Amino acid sequence: MNKVVFSLQEAVERAGLRNGMTISFHHHLREGDRVVKEVLQIVRKMGIRDLTLCATSLMNCHDFLPDFIIDGTIVQLDSSGLRGKLGAFIRAGGMQNPVVLRSHGGRARAVASGERKVDIAFIAASMADVYGNANGVQGKNAFGSLGYGIWESLQATTSVIVTDTLSPSILPHISISQSNTDIVAVIDSIGDSQLLKSGSLEDKADSISKVIAKNVSRFLLKSEIPLNHTSIQMGSGGITLQVIRYLKDTLRENGWKFQFAIGGITAHLIQMLQEGWVEALMDVQSFDTLGADSIFKNRNHHEIDVNTYANPDNPYCVVNNLDIAILSTLEIDLDWNCNVLTGSDGTFMGAIGGHPDVAESSKLTIITAPLIRERIPIVVDHVNTVVTRGRDVDVFICDWGIAIKPEHEHLIRALTDVGIAVFTLEELYRKALSLVGKPQKPISGTRNVAIVQDRRGGTL
Amino acid sequence: MNKVVFSLQEAVERAGLRNGMTISFHHHLREGDRVVKEVLQIVRKMGIRDLTLCATSLMNCHDFLPDFIIDGTIVQLDSSGLRGKLGAFIRAGGMQNPVVLRSHGGRARAVASGERKVDIAFIAASMADVYGNANGVQGKNAFGSLGYGIWESLQATTSVIVTDTLSPSILPHISISQSNTDIVAVIDSIGDSQLLKSGSLEDKADSISKVIAKNVSRFLLKSEIPLNHTSIQMGSGGITLQVIRYLKDTLRENGWKFQFAIGGITAHLIQMLQEGWVEALMDVQSFDTLGADSIFKNRNHHEIDVNTYANPDNPYCVVNNLDIAILSTLEIDLDWNCNVLTGSDGTFMGAIGGHPDVAESSKLTIITAPLIRERIPIVVDHVNTVVTRGRDVDVFICDWGIAIKPEHEHLIRALTDVGIAVFTLEELYRKALSLVGKPQKPISGTRNVAIVQDRRGGTL
Repeated sequence: MNKVVFSLQEAVERAGLRNGMTISFHHHLREGDRVVKEVLQIVRKMGIRDLTLCATSLMNCHDFLPDFIIDGTIVQLDSSGLRGKLGAFIRAGGMQNPVVLRSHGGRARAVASGERKVDIAFIAASMADVYGNANGVQGKNAFGSLGYGIWESLQATTSVIVTDTLSPSILPHISISQSNTDIVAVIDSIGDSQLLKSGSLEDKADSISKVIAKNVSRFLLKSEIPLNHTSIQMGSGGITLQVIRYLKDTLRENGWKFQFAIGGITAHLIQMLQEGWVEALMDVQSFDTLGADSIFKNRNHHEIDVNTYANPDNPYCVVNNLDIAILSTLEIDLDWNCNVLTGSDGTFMGAIGGHPDVAESSKLTIITAPLIRERIPIVVDHVNTVVTRGRDVDVFICDWGIAIKPEHEHLIRALTDVGIAVFTLEELYRKALSLVGKPQKPISGTRNVAIVQDRRGGTL
Repeated sequence: MNKVVFSLQEAVERAGLRNGMTISFHHHLREGDRVVKEVLQIVRKMGIRDLTLCATSLMNCHDFLPDFIIDGTIVQLDSSGLRGKLGAFIRAGGMQNPVVLRSHGGRARAVASGERKVDIAFIAASMADVYGNANGVQGKNAFGSLGYGIWESLQATTSVIVTDTLSPSILPHISISQSNTDIVAVIDSIGDSQLLKSGSLEDKADSISKVIAKNVSRFLLKSEIPLNHTSIQMGSGGITLQVIRYLKDTLRENGWKFQFAIGGITAHLIQMLQEGWVEALMDVQSFDTLGADSIFKNRNHHEIDVNTYANPDNPYCVVNNLDIAILSTLEIDLDWNCNVLTGSDGTFMGAIGGHPDVAESSKLTIITAPLIRERIPIVVDHVNTVVTRGRDVDVFICDWGIAIKPEHEHLIRALTDVGIAVFTLEELYRKALSLVGKPQKPISGTRNVAIVQDRRGGTL
């Protein structure tokens, strides 16, 4: 039983792809992905159409997708995010069926529950062996955790590993077991893993980010929240990277360690692990090429599948063990609802990611953003797209100060007792308006071009 | 959601055990297991009865089981093997329902297909963390691979990790994910892992074993079977350990390496990995306490679950990639059928293990045994229990010589060309009779006390 083929077309034929099926892809290679394009070009050449493309997310590198929608190769699109030309195309009504946008946890649920059954998963792997064992940590395009791919290999009817590095020997690191892969397609290049790098270890934060990070650090230090042996998720943005720098000092001074950090794993978190400020990393997706080497070498850097990360149908997922989440947003409104998907003008410019998964599950959710971004207020009366419900948010921290939900009286008291001002969201909202005025609402058409699901498949 | 309890009774209560359910156990601790007894004592105390006990195997340390059968706690028993007092009790008709005996691969199939649905799995782990991640490679009773336990955690309705070492930090080696465990029961001792040691690195083979091993080594060397980059499974008996010694010389002289070795992993195989004579070990069960440390430290020593090892419903299981299997037997008959379960007098004295899984799947299956064992001929006209079908066996090698199935003409020719005698099984059978006479057949009663399933659930 030889799984290895050296042509994508042969892989597609062996997998039995037919009109109307659902195919899936992960976005571990982020802007460096080439696998979606390679597969779709073959599919189109073979005359297969009416497909559902169920991606874990789509990036700017997938700007070619409108071509495949216009010609009928793809009739349904699922993703976590939309951006750039593809986002504009969808917003302009280029697709008949509304795009379904899910969080990472929500998608893990959808593919497992049968809501979106995947017929054939095309799973990019930076290395695979002849038996179909695969990983993302070796090879010329090592990208780190295969967290989305592992779950996909378990859920899809047929799993096709797509790799540019084939090993005749069994891999020393097996992320996806040969038990769960049907075909290994060897191609010239799965992309360019250097393009997944989202941040570096250099301090590039702007002055506003530094102020916000300083406010977060003051909040964490003075609010009497336990930090030792707690668990934390932080995003990949400039603000959270800066927060890590401030926290490290606090940890050092107090002899504290975090129990684990989860989520997209950045170079800063890897450095924290190496330096001993966090005991373990739970990595569903590496946000830096350093992730591959770290997973391979550091036994406390764990690769976890997305079911273990945040599937709401999995009561034991890691986000349920989360103490503190520090997340960014594009908008937050007076009901504390967050929008991480669309800009104030309604354009698609982000992704849901794990935002609602983490916000709902963690004991304390802190949202960070500048009060104003390029003359656009971030605190608004109503977000134009609810991605994370206000009930799942506890604290908002911006460059102008800290807002805490009124019900967290002890947090408010702890800060005011040491002379730190605590604002209401309304106060920050009015502040923003006083600075830049009230922005116009985006104009919406009458057609629903995309549906944002909550993590359990409900409407928001 | 706190999974940790410090009482087995609380674990049993939380798991919701009721009369008539199926509970399961693995035998990674071999003769050192204490978990089966601890759980059954609690279950009896709680007045729960009519249980099906589905064990991956049962050893002499489970000799107390007749008590729990007589009092009705257990009404159905599944195992891979029966021995000692329990075997005698079953043979004497002590149990109303026939015991179901399966190979390891067959059991993996049965619990996954629903043929034997497990309600509650009690999974001994040498270490677990507070979130329910577990392994067998750390803690005071580290036993190595958790290959049976991993699959059990995926198949059972409720998975109870039973451990004597709880970690407040996330484990550095996660064999069973927190996603698949419901309860962590911490008890004083899961047993004594030192008792699982089945062999040592010292050369304890007797003179007959050495002759057999020499014959195997001559066969492998002279039959022109490729050895470089091939895969191999060997048992844990004295003969196969000795064969490894001879093979090492051959590999060294030729600059060859095996691609991987699978099965129960012995200290000798670990040494071969460390010395570079085999590229990888695929370990479903460690036959030496050295296994734990080796899995923990050597990235080419892979822990694999039993589905990946040998489930016949998994077309990609590792045994399907196997080139050469060297297996021992208690009896082999003129139709090449093997019996690894019952002695010539009909007593239960062994276990099916992976024997039929490996024999059926590997390209070449070599059976080894002395021609006569304690004045009992090993080559017989008809084995009293067929465990492995003759169609799955290719070669029989004993101290008196080598027998090869007539259809393997090229192997016969290769050996005879270099002056090595090749016998028929009939010739070896007559030789045995001429030495010790024809043994009496065991007397069977009219009741079926046990059923040996083939790996797909059929009768043998």
